[in-house]
Amino acid sequence: MKLFGGGQEMNAVDEEQTAFEIGVVVPKRNVKEEEKTSDCVEVLVKEFRNLGLVVERVHGVVDEFIKLAAPLETLGRAAAELQIKKRTAIGMDLQFEWEEVDAFVRQPDGSVFSWCERFRCYRHLLYGIINKSRSSVTLRFDDKEFCWEVGEYLLQKLESERIVKEVFPLHDEIKRKKLLHTWALHWWDFTNQPIDEIYAYFGAKIAIYFAFLGMYTRWLLFPAAFGLIMHMFDFGSLQLLVLPIFFVCIILWAIMFSQFWKRKNSALLARWQISYPVRTDLGYRQGVGWSSSPSVELAKKWGTDKTKEKEMFQRIEWFGRLMRFRNDAFIIFSIICLQLPFELAYAHIYEVIESDIMKVGLTTIYLFAIQFLTQIGGKISVKLIKYENNENTEKRADSLVYKVFGLYFMQSYIGVFYHALLHRNFSTLRKVLIQRLLVSQVLENLLENILPYLKYSYKKYRVRSKKKREKGSSIGKIQFAYRVEKEYLKPSYSASIGMELEDGLFDDFLEVALQFGMIMMFACAFPLAFAFATLNNITEIRADALKLLAMLRRPTPRFSTTIGAWLNIFQFLIVMSICTNCALLVWLYDEEGKWKIEPGLAAILVMEHVLLLIKFGFSRFVPEEPAWVEANRVKNATNAENMCSKQLLKSISGARTTFGDVKKSQ
Amino acid sequence: MKLFGGGQEMNAVDEEQTAFEIGVVVPKRNVKEEEKTSDCVEVLVKEFRNLGLVVERVHGVVDEFIKLAAPLETLGRAAAELQIKKRTAIGMDLQFEWEEVDAFVRQPDGSVFSWCERFRCYRHLLYGIINKSRSSVTLRFDDKEFCWEVGEYLLQKLESERIVKEVFPLHDEIKRKKLLHTWALHWWDFTNQPIDEIYAYFGAKIAIYFAFLGMYTRWLLFPAAFGLIMHMFDFGSLQLLVLPIFFVCIILWAIMFSQFWKRKNSALLARWQISYPVRTDLGYRQGVGWSSSPSVELAKKWGTDKTKEKEMFQRIEWFGRLMRFRNDAFIIFSIICLQLPFELAYAHIYEVIESDIMKVGLTTIYLFAIQFLTQIGGKISVKLIKYENNENTEKRADSLVYKVFGLYFMQSYIGVFYHALLHRNFSTLRKVLIQRLLVSQVLENLLENILPYLKYSYKKYRVRSKKKREKGSSIGKIQFAYRVEKEYLKPSYSASIGMELEDGLFDDFLEVALQFGMIMMFACAFPLAFAFATLNNITEIRADALKLLAMLRRPTPRFSTTIGAWLNIFQFLIVMSICTNCALLVWLYDEEGKWKIEPGLAAILVMEHVLLLIKFGFSRFVPEEPAWVEANRVKNATNAENMCSKQLLKSISGARTTFGDVKKSQ
Repeated sequence: MKLFGGGQEMNAVDEEQTAFEIGVVVPKRNVKEEEKTSDCVEVLVKEFRNLGLVVERVHGVVDEFIKLAAPLETLGRAAAELQIKKRTAIGMDLQFEWEEVDAFVRQPDGSVFSWCERFRCYRHLLYGIINKSRSSVTLRFDDKEFCWEVGEYLLQKLESERIVKEVFPLHDEIKRKKLLHTWALHWWDFTNQPIDEIYAYFGAKIAIYFAFLGMYTRWLLFPAAFGLIMHMFDFGSLQLLVLPIFFVCIILWAIMFSQFWKRKNSALLARWQISYPVRTDLGYRQGVGWSSSPSVELAKKWGTDKTKEKEMFQRIEWFGRLMRFRNDAFIIFSIICLQLPFELAYAHIYEVIESDIMKVGLTTIYLFAIQFLTQIGGKISVKLIKYENNENTEKRADSLVYKVFGLYFMQSYIGVFYHALLHRNFSTLRKVLIQRLLVSQVLENLLENILPYLKYSYKKYRVRSKKKREKGSSIGKIQFAYRVEKEYLKPSYSASIGMELEDGLFDDFLEVALQFGMIMMFACAFPLAFAFATLNNITEIRADALKLLAMLRRPTPRFSTTIGAWLNIFQFLIVMSICTNCALLVWLYDEEGKWKIEPGLAAILVMEHVLLLIKFGFSRFVPEEPAWVEANRVKNATNAENMCSKQLLKSISGARTTFGDVKKSQ
Repeated sequence: MKLFGGGQEMNAVDEEQTAFEIGVVVPKRNVKEEEKTSDCVEVLVKEFRNLGLVVERVHGVVDEFIKLAAPLETLGRAAAELQIKKRTAIGMDLQFEWEEVDAFVRQPDGSVFSWCERFRCYRHLLYGIINKSRSSVTLRFDDKEFCWEVGEYLLQKLESERIVKEVFPLHDEIKRKKLLHTWALHWWDFTNQPIDEIYAYFGAKIAIYFAFLGMYTRWLLFPAAFGLIMHMFDFGSLQLLVLPIFFVCIILWAIMFSQFWKRKNSALLARWQISYPVRTDLGYRQGVGWSSSPSVELAKKWGTDKTKEKEMFQRIEWFGRLMRFRNDAFIIFSIICLQLPFELAYAHIYEVIESDIMKVGLTTIYLFAIQFLTQIGGKISVKLIKYENNENTEKRADSLVYKVFGLYFMQSYIGVFYHALLHRNFSTLRKVLIQRLLVSQVLENLLENILPYLKYSYKKYRVRSKKKREKGSSIGKIQFAYRVEKEYLKPSYSASIGMELEDGLFDDFLEVALQFGMIMMFACAFPLAFAFATLNNITEIRADALKLLAMLRRPTPRFSTTIGAWLNIFQFLIVMSICTNCALLVWLYDEEGKWKIEPGLAAILVMEHVLLLIKFGFSRFVPEEPAWVEANRVKNATNAENMCSKQLLKSISGARTTFGDVKKSQ
């Protein structure tokens, strides 16, 4: 190992100059010189080179790493094959053609393709290696031999033979370090973040998450200040008047926030030159498979027999809807019938038990139980979703998010509701809330960063001990000389419910959403919570950034234009909080427990209805798209149409004349 | 007059063969042969002929009528000048070019242009006649003389001189008679209507109204049947259980109806080959003027200095929003502070007065007063709207509809609410409802058809008496020999609030909306109302059809893709009816007036919230666009892009090279 020690510095420099973006991990083998042509890894590397990729091979401690970079032209050809749609200079999205590369708009950093597009091209290139020769090729791996049949995909074959252990995106050291300084370690910026650079480095989905978190935290400053004032001054007899005012302000704030986020979102997309409603690429699936849902397949066949096709479409549409309805009903039913009693039982027993040790024990058991239950819930949800024909991966992920959020919603809030209902006492409720907020927020923030580090250390330790066992009693600690090997050992950005549809963003969004629910739904009971949340979120931004840049592998970029299901969940939480806060206010007024509707209580009911009306009417006053984005879009569309209108018309009428279905002009 | 008597039959045949679509009315003059070249009407006719229009002149009893028809080519050239966007064979909307007429999709009846488009072209042609010569032309009208200056529009000039009395669309006799038979007089079809023919004859807006009315009536059959059952059987002690079930079913029915109407709407648009979101033609204004709102003007200038432009856009956007908010606040404020007390006062005095004669007197005064108040409200609304910068006429009309509906809402329901609150007695409430429904529905239906006929007769009478006075004591009754003259005397399809933004559709929609509100908001009190409404609507469909075809002039076609503001009003009424019905149920349970929340009443509150949640969540389950429409659209878009993609790219990159702003390829 010391052999490479000297070269480490030089290597690091090399790595930084050529931006290798994909790593392929294969085990180390003993390759004899004469067998080199049939060694499977050698064949793989040769095929990579044939594709035009820049290949660098690195021998790590246990595994060999193939680092891949692609010149622009290679990517361009792949993009043309994939028929990727890109924004052109006239503002219209057109299929990419390598020959006309100048017609397309560049990314802000000057490159032609965004990271999302580059990654898609890489996958297309790598997983598209096929045996095009006439005969099957014999491949050798150590002593094993197997056939690469004609028309078989090489990488899939090697993956199924467990020779290729993993294909993963690599960090780009220059950009990573730059981001680390300008973003993750730039604490004094509070909520400001270099969103454009994040977009360039991590892709749209993650950048939108951070933009959301930043805006949310910035907006939180207002209720945090209001809450602080509420807490610091004693309004005495005016308290019963100030609390409803606070409640109304908070709700209006939340309604405006959710609408203004939509505007911010579409402004971001306009800045990144992404078309808002990506309807034409329904068929796009992340990764290799170009499988499509039935409706998309049909869209291609959509032919002459219109009424029959229409009926078929309607049948498929309603069947899919029915399946989704069935799944949702199943999930809601099981949450109410299984989870609700369980949570209530825990909350009740916790109340009844007197001894503190018993309480700790019970909570420990409970925590393990909910971990287990959430896992099961997640697995069931994934199974159910397979039967739905959602349009694309993001839609499927949304469907999963709704279902799993149902579980977490019950888990997080039912205990608090129980306390609120049982004690009808704001100070007890406040205690419970502080407890929950501290536990969930502070601990989670710590765990989020420590856990990946522990995982990484453990993996390093295991590799080292394995190596030591192999080599016998070698002296000294084994060093991981190469960055790519270190990255391979780092944990990936994955969701705690652990599945293919969602990555770590699920956990991050879940945290924000649960916090939002907690502070909004019990706003009247604990106005100070907003200040807590603000502090927490300011740290959360940097902690998440640090986690992504330093603790984890570079995440697989996901293409998405919005925060998807989470926005709806936020909206739902706003509606819920209108109802719960009104209930809290009623309890507050109705101290004797008489449940009599008096003017004050009737006023609360009226207020609730007015707020609900505002919630659902507000979107009519403030549209989701700012005027300048719309004007830009209109200008682009007219531009495009003016350019191609005449040309197109000629070719259309030409085609019609050829095919002879022209009606005579009158 | 008898002179023309013999030719009447022949003339009628002529009229039916060439479809004259526009009529221009000028007064009769005494033209001497030598002055013929400078007579203003002769000049006008000459200019019409120069445009390529087919002109027929008819001398009526008092006025002269110029009937105009246009050959396809004349219309086509006008459409190309107007840059009308039309659906092409590949499914994309492109600017019309006369040379490539074959590339465009034909209307279902085989014509190239729809009635909306034809009307627009006519207006463009007629109002575009300009003095292109070097010197001004002297025009003569009887003894008056005036100048047609260089660069002046002829028709506007003649209108301002009151020589051209009116320009109005003419009925097409063949199609009108056909529609009369297949639609207006086809009673036994119940809710079925030949929507496509209606679209072809009256344009999109009116066709969508009738499609809506038909679907609404068809859907009404279910609650009508349910209501009948409720009425016929006495459920005894189960009544308190059946009523909430009825309520829930009705609300679910209404929610589904409003969502399924949206689907039906988009299916209709797909069938008529109209693009759903018409965003690119923001600048289109009905009629001649191509005036545009500030944001559209800016969209054209949208140039290099992006951030400045963006700021300006945002300023304009928020200023417009502020103005609209101010207007809405003003309207709401004046309705609550002025109209509400007035209505309550009437309702209260009506209750207090014992004598029946006094009641009738009071109601008469009240009816006159509200007529007057509504007129004032309408006028104020129109004035206010002028300060808003709504995107186009239809948006402006929507803004007006919201404001005026506020007035009508108070007028129609506040009395009923008063009765409900005062008596807390379902049978009294029921009486009031029957009274209102009968009065408003039956009387209005009758008036709707009788009033235009009376107006028509009165106008005829006036013309006749005027003529008689001129001619002295001529013998016999004066006959109106020409259809065009009869049409001119018919009243136009205009709104009762009387203004330029809305036509008669306002009254028709208002009637349907007020009926919907009446039957929905008090559904629990009077389930039989649905049956009444169904019967009424079945007659309404044919009555409205008859009115449009036989009683009125052909209405000016309006281009619109949805029912606009009315859908939102329906949604609002659904939400209101959830609240009012819950209140009714609470009153029903709370007979002793104790106002105590007991399990039953708490259950009602929970039910209300669940229904509100369903109302706002339902649109997530059933999208507004059917899958087949979406698939069709996607296919069209890809089609178009495949055809023009390469061509476009070349011209873009070519243009970029020429203008020299190319970045070097990496």
